[in-house]
Amino acid sequence: MAGDSALPHIVIVGGGFGGLWAARGLAKAPVRITLIDRCNYHLFQPLLYQVATAGLAAVDIAAPLRHILSAQANVGVLMAEVAQVDRAASAVQLADGTRLQYDTLLLASGSTHAYFGHDDWAAHAPGLKTLDDAEVILRRVFGAFEQAELHADAALARDAWLTFVVIGAGPTGVELAGTLIEIARHTLKREFRRIDTSKARVMLVEAGPRVLATFPEILSAKARVQLERLGVEVLTSSPVTAVDADGIAIGDRRIAARTVLWAAGVAASKLGATLGAPLDHAGRVQVNADLSVPGAPNIFVAGDLAALVLDGEPVPGVAPAAKQMGAYVARVISGRIAGSTPPPFRYRDDGALATIGRWAAVVDLGRVRLSGAFAWCFWLTVHIFFLIGFRNRLRVMIDWSWGYWKYYRGARIILGNDGDDTN
Amino acid sequence: MAGDSALPHIVIVGGGFGGLWAARGLAKAPVRITLIDRCNYHLFQPLLYQVATAGLAAVDIAAPLRHILSAQANVGVLMAEVAQVDRAASAVQLADGTRLQYDTLLLASGSTHAYFGHDDWAAHAPGLKTLDDAEVILRRVFGAFEQAELHADAALARDAWLTFVVIGAGPTGVELAGTLIEIARHTLKREFRRIDTSKARVMLVEAGPRVLATFPEILSAKARVQLERLGVEVLTSSPVTAVDADGIAIGDRRIAARTVLWAAGVAASKLGATLGAPLDHAGRVQVNADLSVPGAPNIFVAGDLAALVLDGEPVPGVAPAAKQMGAYVARVISGRIAGSTPPPFRYRDDGALATIGRWAAVVDLGRVRLSGAFAWCFWLTVHIFFLIGFRNRLRVMIDWSWGYWKYYRGARIILGNDGDDTN
Repeated sequence: MAGDSALPHIVIVGGGFGGLWAARGLAKAPVRITLIDRCNYHLFQPLLYQVATAGLAAVDIAAPLRHILSAQANVGVLMAEVAQVDRAASAVQLADGTRLQYDTLLLASGSTHAYFGHDDWAAHAPGLKTLDDAEVILRRVFGAFEQAELHADAALARDAWLTFVVIGAGPTGVELAGTLIEIARHTLKREFRRIDTSKARVMLVEAGPRVLATFPEILSAKARVQLERLGVEVLTSSPVTAVDADGIAIGDRRIAARTVLWAAGVAASKLGATLGAPLDHAGRVQVNADLSVPGAPNIFVAGDLAALVLDGEPVPGVAPAAKQMGAYVARVISGRIAGSTPPPFRYRDDGALATIGRWAAVVDLGRVRLSGAFAWCFWLTVHIFFLIGFRNRLRVMIDWSWGYWKYYRGARIILGNDGDDTN
Repeated sequence: MAGDSALPHIVIVGGGFGGLWAARGLAKAPVRITLIDRCNYHLFQPLLYQVATAGLAAVDIAAPLRHILSAQANVGVLMAEVAQVDRAASAVQLADGTRLQYDTLLLASGSTHAYFGHDDWAAHAPGLKTLDDAEVILRRVFGAFEQAELHADAALARDAWLTFVVIGAGPTGVELAGTLIEIARHTLKREFRRIDTSKARVMLVEAGPRVLATFPEILSAKARVQLERLGVEVLTSSPVTAVDADGIAIGDRRIAARTVLWAAGVAASKLGATLGAPLDHAGRVQVNADLSVPGAPNIFVAGDLAALVLDGEPVPGVAPAAKQMGAYVARVISGRIAGSTPPPFRYRDDGALATIGRWAAVVDLGRVRLSGAFAWCFWLTVHIFFLIGFRNRLRVMIDWSWGYWKYYRGARIILGNDGDDTN
């Protein structure tokens, strides 16, 4: 871009909520921005579990980054993987060795799965952070019913294929479990001839004493009741001690399950470690009050990668927090150019939502707490509202309408079947 | 299913147009049907090129087989790969070794890519027969623009990334080429900062003397004009002699192109060879007038796998032919049970359609030939009409409306980025 070399170059790593809100926040600033992401799309993560369970298609909850930012003249997008940050040289290094100089850097590369030191569990218990994860889970879940049908005569094998375990009872785990039981008891009920899908077992296993541990106790209790009413077996105070291809173990108790899903832990993106800055136990970067890195005032961190404690409470790794942090960093950067300094970052907790099944959800808005049908309608509305793009909202409303009236899950198209050309 | 063991067991291999229309045709027959497919969905192949170029999402043109057939009580679906047919034992053998006995067998496993003895070209020039193929092509096409942006300063590399070659000018090749040029000149025009996507070259390379060789000459000529007006470089009488990672060769002429797509040849599914029946040069099974296999009256072949010459013309490997053959086989099977014999198979040629770009298509209806805008509207209408499922039709209409008014291609979400966990 002509005449830009004099402008400060802001490099943003990550096109999720943190990075994208930062880029947009700088739309009018006299800067040149490069946003780097290894994917070409922005993902609405709160609805990932819907893609994993075929309630929505991948394209419904993702929008091409270039398209979102195409009208903003001062930002360019690069689809690349950032391997590390070279603070001394003020550059980021891409996976292919290319280096990109920056004047200011924002790291917003998010989080990934954590298996508490049991990385070998990853192959057997996929997590849900990306669209590729969702595709893997969809293939395993719907593939399991197919395998049960093929092996209908071998009772033990069939039952293992019809047993689903979700590890971790945070919002993602609760949403997955509630949806799996609906798939088994409603969506697929009339479609198999040799198995009765409603006999499938869905177990939600949590190491702690309650589900939705970050919600108020009364909502945790209501969520548990709603899950059990749907048919989910909820096991709390049950830390998983082993995961393999045939199932899991909780201490001495063994559960045969061919489909195990991981919703129990996340760890920060490994890029944080390349900063040489203080990290917390989960690998998150401990940032200053203005979200900059201690000792590196021109490097910021936002979103799941940032560790910040305010009034004794850690800022949670949720979408609204990432948005607010990204927007805040944009204000700090703009402010510096204009010679002003915004006050320290404040996290505005707008509440938390989790859906359990149709007509069942819990909503915590601080003073207002909702559960049941009203909470579910609220949840639907909020999620549609926050999707990017009118077209995505329209598609999601259509998919959900079909899904509601007919329990139909049209997005259960299993890909990855080609293998080699033997047919 | 109780009381069914006395009913004849019809095994249908393949849930495409041939197999599905045969299964539906037997809805009222006193038979027990098992339909086997290695995918869990029925695919509307004529619109595959739209998924490959992000005009539609995979879920828009595919419908779960179980759902389509769930209300038909006498059919069950198995998701499995058939490895071979054992005629002597009247059984099909699945990839996992399981055997399934049949009284009557219908092989409708379709076709796959053929590289005329150059199987090493497959890695560099993907074809388009399955949804997985479409995902590979989408990743390569949109990934090429991303690579060009990353390497914008290296002119030769950038130009190679911005050169797209489609080999084979049948309907699929023509549709791909016309769409690629629209992506380059319209869809992505404002989204890149360092490259000018409208400078991309799209070349359609055909060994024979004209494009759309199976259409009347006058429509071939019009199609060529429409393509060239859009900006596609059409090379006829240009047989490709080499394909590698850097491009192609046509005799002495070398073209540097990092994205090469194959639309030049198909071969029959390899299952045909396991029948021990006469095959033609493309591996298709040469069937009797009633679509049965010579010497095996209880084995039928329908769709792309069948070779049948009527009045000197081979029945083409197109969707309507497969549907008609599948429906015909159902009538023969029902007829035999009822003690009657339908007349030999007749192919009703309803015409052929190919779209080139917006407001540009050619339609051959025998006596009526259309081209240009009117043909394009006709093409749109027919394709929407023949999709399975109202919901799919609605989604496609929405996607196409958005695409038409804004050149928007929202389905260009590139998957497969996770790789290993380095970030």
